[in-house]
Parts: sequence; structure tokens; C-alpha cells
Amino acid sequence: MLKAIQFLGSSSGFVAYRWNWIPHSTSCFISVSNPLSYSTSTKGPTRKLLLSSFSSRKATSLRPIRAQSTRSESKMDGTSSSSATVHSAANARKINFCQWCGGATKHEIPDGEEKTRAICTICGKIAYQNPKMVVGCLIEHDNKILLCKRNIQPSYGLWTLPAGYLEIGESAAEGAIRETWEEARAEVEVVSPFAQLDIPLIGQTYIIFIAKLKKPHFSPGPESLECRLFSLDDIPFDSLAFSSMFVTLNLYIEDVKGGSLKFHYGTINKRPGTSPSDIHAYTLDYHLQS
Amino acid sequence: MLKAIQFLGSSSGFVAYRWNWIPHSTSCFISVSNPLSYSTSTKGPTRKLLLSSFSSRKATSLRPIRAQSTRSESKMDGTSSSSATVHSAANARKINFCQWCGGATKHEIPDGEEKTRAICTICGKIAYQNPKMVVGCLIEHDNKILLCKRNIQPSYGLWTLPAGYLEIGESAAEGAIRETWEEARAEVEVVSPFAQLDIPLIGQTYIIFIAKLKKPHFSPGPESLECRLFSLDDIPFDSLAFSSMFVTLNLYIEDVKGGSLKFHYGTINKRPGTSPSDIHAYTLDYHLQS
Repeated sequence: MLKAIQFLGSSSGFVAYRWNWIPHSTSCFISVSNPLSYSTSTKGPTRKLLLSSFSSRKATSLRPIRAQSTRSESKMDGTSSSSATVHSAANARKINFCQWCGGATKHEIPDGEEKTRAICTICGKIAYQNPKMVVGCLIEHDNKILLCKRNIQPSYGLWTLPAGYLEIGESAAEGAIRETWEEARAEVEVVSPFAQLDIPLIGQTYIIFIAKLKKPHFSPGPESLECRLFSLDDIPFDSLAFSSMFVTLNLYIEDVKGGSLKFHYGTINKRPGTSPSDIHAYTLDYHLQS
Repeated sequence: MLKAIQFLGSSSGFVAYRWNWIPHSTSCFISVSNPLSYSTSTKGPTRKLLLSSFSSRKATSLRPIRAQSTRSESKMDGTSSSSATVHSAANARKINFCQWCGGATKHEIPDGEEKTRAICTICGKIAYQNPKMVVGCLIEHDNKILLCKRNIQPSYGLWTLPAGYLEIGESAAEGAIRETWEEARAEVEVVSPFAQLDIPLIGQTYIIFIAKLKKPHFSPGPESLECRLFSLDDIPFDSLAFSSMFVTLNLYIEDVKGGSLKFHYGTINKRPGTSPSDIHAYTLDYHLQS
């Protein structure tokens, strides 16, 4: 289950990838500033990416470039998948009532804190709002990876890694395995952590694991139209569902070409003035590797 | 701000570290099953640990050993820091009312889902409960690390890495930097991701970054009694505040001794029948490295 709202906001990070998406051309290359440089091709529209490759524990400082795309950004909201009126996670739907006693809330800064919170006027409990984790699997099989074509909105008909909200009471690995079963009817084993990608504007953090099939079987679950293995050259970059998946797949390709998988931490900051539907309109800030 | 409830539950993972805590002895060694083996000493009570060290993308399968400790487990609850009646995050305080319209909730399985949720009987919105992220820094300075002695409950007077709940609208790195300032009045730069440790029973995920001081200054914030740099041999393992910090610091020592820092993913599963106050009564499951 992957339902997302990814809205636009300011890019405040001090460290950035430089992405430049050039649609409707016929070849693709990834120019890596240092030390790697390689090129590859895709069947989809061309993308020209400036991906900075750096040693472990070192961050990039490339300036962002405005990207161009016509793809729709995804929507996700842990409390509802239908609202499109939320413009920032920090201002997400006002909490007007206490979940536990039903009392009306006031919005004040509690003693000893610095931020305004929703405080129950009856029982005094504070309703904190925290980011949500989305967990998923990048499944390797026969030098290909498994993608699911979405059978639900948002991003109906677009491709994604199997992923969804982490449930209370389960670990991220368990959640990623569960989501993979739900969306791709695939039994997988998690192999290693691969990426953590925060999207602060919408209060989401993506945790992606490298995984492998326990059995060579998969089929679309109710939320998928189709599940298919793609070679790296055939990944449908022109019809991906989410920025998080676009980043994940590019980092994965970069690592594979470089000969070793790393763990990537990064913040996806949507760029001001760009459409919520543009999954390429962002900077990847704070990119750190282990 | 680090407020935690870490309660006991079942260990369901298939992969486990084996920890054996022996208090009140005078020497400490960490026996590593494969391939590393080394010993070190601490000034605190002796601990004998069986730490499994394995190559990247490989997991352990050691059986858990019951640990002994008299230390109090920490408490954390995103909605309140005062309740000690919560025994499982999955059964955490019932949601009785809708936060948005104030309507009474019913607890049913929504169409297309598999789990019981709190559904508003008036507006129909579903109140999902998701795990919360705790973010913090492991700060390296002059071959020492920075710890804070807690000035608040739970775990008053015990030592911890600066850490606290990730706020909506910020990235994990930003949150870790903020928490470090709040608790240790230290300006830090995050250097690399170091660990993700899930504690499913209480609905928490710890994200710890390696960081360094921008300036060699720090002092206790309001939530700390004291902040101090410790050499690895002097880390107060006998008076740590949380299981998550105990695991993080041991993994860090293991990596330092091995010559390189890795990224660690793992699940801290509290063992049934042990006290909530025992920070050593757990198994570390699904331990994976990148």
C-alpha cells in the first residue's frame, strides 16, 4: 500500500545533487563528477543526470538545477488518501479534538517546549505530529529488479518499488516484506539496508531494503496492475510513480555500475514554484553514504 | 528531548545477536564469533558480549541469552511522557474520538484493509497509528564521543547520546542536529548515517548519525545534567539510559576496533518475562549491514 502526497516547498539543504532531466531525447548518460563516469541507455525518454559520486562519509555540494517533467507527483497521507488540500506536512490537517477524551484542543506552546502543539483543554494531553515511515524493497533477481505498476491512485498506471506505510508493532524489515507480499505476491528476504530518503515537506521517510526472492514467483496483488522484472537498462524512468523511487533507482544504478552497493541517506526537497506532479523537481540534500 | 517507553514483548525475529551481561565483574571482553575477536576493558561493571560480526549483506542467527541488569528501561510516548501503563505500541492508548471532527470512533477493519482501525462514525476518516522516529548523533571528537546525563525522567541521571523525536517538517539529519543543540548545546555537522534500530514493541525507530563538532564547545541544555566526552574504554555502560544506546555504542566500538564504520540496521526485540527496566534484556534481530 503506497499512498503519498508529495507537495512542493522550499529547498533548505546545504548539500545537493544536481539533476537535469531532459525529456524526449533518445540517449541517456549519467555524468559522475568524481570519481566515476559512465553512460548507459534506456528505452524511455532520455535523462541527463549529474550524479555526484563521493567516498563514504563525504557529502556533495552541487547546486540544484531546475528539472522539467510532466509526470504527476504522488500523494500520501497517513490519515486519508483522498485529501489533496494539504500543502505542507507541518500544516497538515488541524487537530481540533483530543483522540482520547474528545475534548476540544487549544493550539499553544506547552511549558518547556518551543513549538505550538494541539493540547486538549479537558485532559491536557498533547497531540504530537510526527513523520511517517514508508518501507519497501528493491528486489534483485537475475540481474533485474522487480517493479509494480500501480492499480490505485495516486499515480495509477505508473511504476514503483513495492512499498507502503510502516505499521505500528512491526519492524521496517517486516513492513517491507509485508508490503512486497501485498503488492507483488512475492516472498522476499531482506538482504541489506539500501536507502533512507526523507521528504520533510510531507512528513515522510522512505526506508528501502535490498531484497531477494525466496521463490521465483510473483504476481500482482490487488493494488498492482502488473509486476515485472526489469533489467537496469529497461527501467521505465519515464513512468515512475514517485520522486523517492526515481532517486532510489538512480542511486542503485550508480552503485551497481560502481561495483558495490552502499547505504544512502538523503533528503528530497521539492523545489519552490514547481508542480506537485513533477517527480523530478527536487534537490537531493544532505546526501551521505556509509 | 528523549522520552521513551521501552516495554517487553516477544522476540519474533529469525536473526539475533547473543548478548550476555555479567554485572559486577572487573573486566570486559567482546567475543566476536566470526571473523573478528577482540577484548577491551571498561571502568564500569564487566560485560561479556557475544557479538556476531559478519560481512556486509549477511545476517547472524545466534540464539538469544537472558541478560541480567538492574537498570531501568526508558519510557517514550509521542503523545505523553507520563504514562507507564502502555504495554505494547500496537495496543497503545485507544483512539476513541476523531481528531478532526470530534466524532466517536468505531474499531473495525476498513474495506480493502486487513487490520482493525479507529474509524470516525461521523466523518469516516481513519486514524492510523504509525511508528515514530527518534533521531540522534554519535559525536566523534578527539577519539572520544559525547554523552549527556539526563536531567529528566525517564532514566534521570543515566547517560545517552543526544537524541529525540523527529518533528514533522524536518529531515532526520536536521532533527538530529536540533536535538544535539537542545541537549548538549553543541553545533554539529552530520557526517554519515550509522544505525537504524527499530523497537517494534513500542513503535519506535532510532536513526543515529555519526557527527562532528563544528566548534569544540558544548554544555548541558535544560534536559541534561552534564555533557562529557568519553574515550571508548570509559563509556559508562553500567549507567546507560536506553537499550538503543547500548546497542549503538557497542556496534560503534565493534566497528572502530574493526577499522571501519558501517551502516547497521537491526530490530531490538525485548524478551518476554524480563523487566521493562532492563535495557539489556533483548535480542538484536534482522541485523544487517551496508
